[in-house]
Amino acid sequence: MSHFPDLPEYTGFNTPLRAELDITDCEVEGEIPSDIDGAFYRANPDPKFPPLLGKDLYFNGDGVITQFRFKDGKVDLKQRYVRTDKFRAEAAAGRALFGAYRNPFFDDPTVAGLSRGTANTNVLLHAGRMFAYKEDSHPVEIDPITLETKGNHDYGGRIKSVSFTAHAKIDPVSGDMIGFGYDAKGIATPDVAYYVIGPDGEVKHETWFQVPYSNLMHDFGVTQDYVIFLVVPVCSSLERARQGAPTFGWDASKDVFVGIMPRYGSGADLRWFRGPNCFCSHVMNAFNQGTRVYIDVPMSKSNMFPFFPDVTGKPFDREAAAGRMTRWSFDLSKPDEGWEKRQLGNMVGEFPKIDERYATLPYRHGYLCVVDPTLPFSANGGSISGLRVNKIGHVDHATGREDSYWVGEKSSLQEPCFVPRSKTSAEGDGYILVLANRYEESRSDVLLLDAQRLSEGPLAVIRLPIRLRSGLHGNWYDGDQIEAAGNR
Amino acid sequence: MSHFPDLPEYTGFNTPLRAELDITDCEVEGEIPSDIDGAFYRANPDPKFPPLLGKDLYFNGDGVITQFRFKDGKVDLKQRYVRTDKFRAEAAAGRALFGAYRNPFFDDPTVAGLSRGTANTNVLLHAGRMFAYKEDSHPVEIDPITLETKGNHDYGGRIKSVSFTAHAKIDPVSGDMIGFGYDAKGIATPDVAYYVIGPDGEVKHETWFQVPYSNLMHDFGVTQDYVIFLVVPVCSSLERARQGAPTFGWDASKDVFVGIMPRYGSGADLRWFRGPNCFCSHVMNAFNQGTRVYIDVPMSKSNMFPFFPDVTGKPFDREAAAGRMTRWSFDLSKPDEGWEKRQLGNMVGEFPKIDERYATLPYRHGYLCVVDPTLPFSANGGSISGLRVNKIGHVDHATGREDSYWVGEKSSLQEPCFVPRSKTSAEGDGYILVLANRYEESRSDVLLLDAQRLSEGPLAVIRLPIRLRSGLHGNWYDGDQIEAAGNR
Repeated sequence: MSHFPDLPEYTGFNTPLRAELDITDCEVEGEIPSDIDGAFYRANPDPKFPPLLGKDLYFNGDGVITQFRFKDGKVDLKQRYVRTDKFRAEAAAGRALFGAYRNPFFDDPTVAGLSRGTANTNVLLHAGRMFAYKEDSHPVEIDPITLETKGNHDYGGRIKSVSFTAHAKIDPVSGDMIGFGYDAKGIATPDVAYYVIGPDGEVKHETWFQVPYSNLMHDFGVTQDYVIFLVVPVCSSLERARQGAPTFGWDASKDVFVGIMPRYGSGADLRWFRGPNCFCSHVMNAFNQGTRVYIDVPMSKSNMFPFFPDVTGKPFDREAAAGRMTRWSFDLSKPDEGWEKRQLGNMVGEFPKIDERYATLPYRHGYLCVVDPTLPFSANGGSISGLRVNKIGHVDHATGREDSYWVGEKSSLQEPCFVPRSKTSAEGDGYILVLANRYEESRSDVLLLDAQRLSEGPLAVIRLPIRLRSGLHGNWYDGDQIEAAGNR
Repeated sequence: MSHFPDLPEYTGFNTPLRAELDITDCEVEGEIPSDIDGAFYRANPDPKFPPLLGKDLYFNGDGVITQFRFKDGKVDLKQRYVRTDKFRAEAAAGRALFGAYRNPFFDDPTVAGLSRGTANTNVLLHAGRMFAYKEDSHPVEIDPITLETKGNHDYGGRIKSVSFTAHAKIDPVSGDMIGFGYDAKGIATPDVAYYVIGPDGEVKHETWFQVPYSNLMHDFGVTQDYVIFLVVPVCSSLERARQGAPTFGWDASKDVFVGIMPRYGSGADLRWFRGPNCFCSHVMNAFNQGTRVYIDVPMSKSNMFPFFPDVTGKPFDREAAAGRMTRWSFDLSKPDEGWEKRQLGNMVGEFPKIDERYATLPYRHGYLCVVDPTLPFSANGGSISGLRVNKIGHVDHATGREDSYWVGEKSSLQEPCFVPRSKTSAEGDGYILVLANRYEESRSDVLLLDAQRLSEGPLAVIRLPIRLRSGLHGNWYDGDQIEAAGNR
């Protein structure tokens, strides 16, 4: 084991942490309501070894899961690497064996055929099992209490797609998990496999189809009756991959396609809507009212991912990358390609989240990371795009009211996570948990805010003595769910 | 669990870490010789809970053991709290229950009778068992591989002293451990119990005696034939303890006493040498040539411990606290109290260490932390006395040559640890391991230096992604010793 290169991805707040951690009874300023019982899980990339090719994308790091377990007014932190196939092979070799993101052409020959998944993107608990996800591979099961890795999970051989999204949705009404794999037959294939997994953990529906062009289908929308696939031109190219260029690139010349299918439909039922070039990646929520289908996304004029460069070499355009929450709606009862877009607020941001009890349903409250595009770009400041998130925003879709918490200029924030006040509390009645990077102190905090009063600031600050690397996505699960799944 | 007060003991580099850690295959700059096989263990205080009385001494924190395991050119870090009686009682209560250092009068009544030991001072492996030590209590056995706590160890009831030094010596010739307890019948008692424990882990010799006045007998000297007790006036007072003042205080009006006893003698054989007031605490080594007994200590005119204030209220005198290695010698063949003192070098410092294969024997090479007394005092800069250690010094007693490594102004160093190049290498032929605090980055490094070429700088730097709190003492054990003791 040598050392990491002196690049923004590996220095400053981005310095790989590489540590497995336990801190019981974390230091708290303020008070944590004693009836909060559950855990906030988040995934983050943290390369165990220096990059094989001398550099790598931040989010190609090995997956680490952090668990913040809240009980009786106390918080315990646990952090573990997911023992993916990649992690185990590289740990045994004592060095990186996998090359570039979504590009097998530069891998060490000894790892041919192994899963390239890093399990670094999201954590979900469904049907009594917890999984860590990377969208290029199968879910990796982990124990929700100990965070020990149990192994790759293909639902008893039922998931034939080589990949599975990190943004599967869990329907709070049926208990189904709705997911899909894109690049389902391998990198840059146009094939998509769609799956519905019942609350018993069995695959109950499956269909395959092809998209108009292969692309980074990072997220999607699910409503009670429909499922919505987004084809946005962050396009994949095996040719670029072979040449050592990023596999994915932004192609401003291409239209956007939205495919809508009944939730239990087949590829033949897919209806494609075609619109002018624009960018979106994550989905706040989707719902339908009869045949009217809505999906809410942070939409921007152009590519938000500077690490996936423009295929024509055009430089990254920060202004055009500014995304605002936008509601797209489609009327399936009409034969034309009608596609309405309505801006839902003025905040510029990404990483949208909701009260997950309202996933797939009409909903009122949304949360997101808010970016001030005028702030200086900081390549190793702990944010993935280089843009500092220094606000968490709340948008009330019923009133249009926006509220936010500003963390100051010396900190930045990560994806918010909503925690219901109780199992029966009203939508949006609860808390927001969010990790804050404290740059000057090389330290992180977890902030607990009232989800309806963000601007009033944290009710409690869980002060961590160490720096946690910036993460991607996370979720909250109640104590009873965790205990049941952990003792399965 | 609330939060720590805004005091130097708990802020900046001194912020409690409170974390249990595993980092396999640490990042390394340079090369670690692949034949180094063993581990550097060090103890450090790290309070799990904010102080019961609003403040506390740095070194009264709960004991944490860090293990740096070297093998095949790689280093794994593991850090665990010692589950002392105190740790377990406080963890169960979720708050501090013990009050001031060596002062039971302010403890929570629920912990009366429990061991107050923190196991935060040193780690030794003897007779196939590893122990963590605090001099006010019994050793606490830990597993040398997992660092799990096995429990208090009183050698099958043979250690009747309530206390046991953190600086027991292991005789490399006989395999005996030579130790003692002061305050052996409780705080501020003049009783000392002396023990020799064989390589089979059985107590083979014991004697009790009283010292001229009760004091902080932190270390002592052992030679092949004698044992040397140091009575230096860091005096204990139950009266001060009851009033809430520090139990220990510096009394410049008192003489120093040195008690010398045959190694298998009884208290009746003790011969006391009396000299003028001066200060010393740690012992580099001791040896005898016939009836001539030598003990090497960093000696200063006055108290080096600002946290144990002058009993008359006189302010701490940094200049008088500057200690230099000094050889004290005593001729037991003569009836007078002859006591010679010879300065061994010019470096100002403390935390002396040697090639432990020469403990109790005539020796040539000594190492110590070197202080530049002109550097600014930094109360939370990660050094225990507030003085920054920015050099590690080597003194060759055969030639008088001094050599040192200077770490720069933005770092400080901790106690060095000698690692023999091989089991059969000559004295001093090996490496020095030393932890460096990197203030600006809130991070620590472990430096590996050639023990005979300190000024040439590190052969390798083990770059840690996190800050480790400043520690007290540590030791190196070879891989075969660790494996045998771990799998006992």
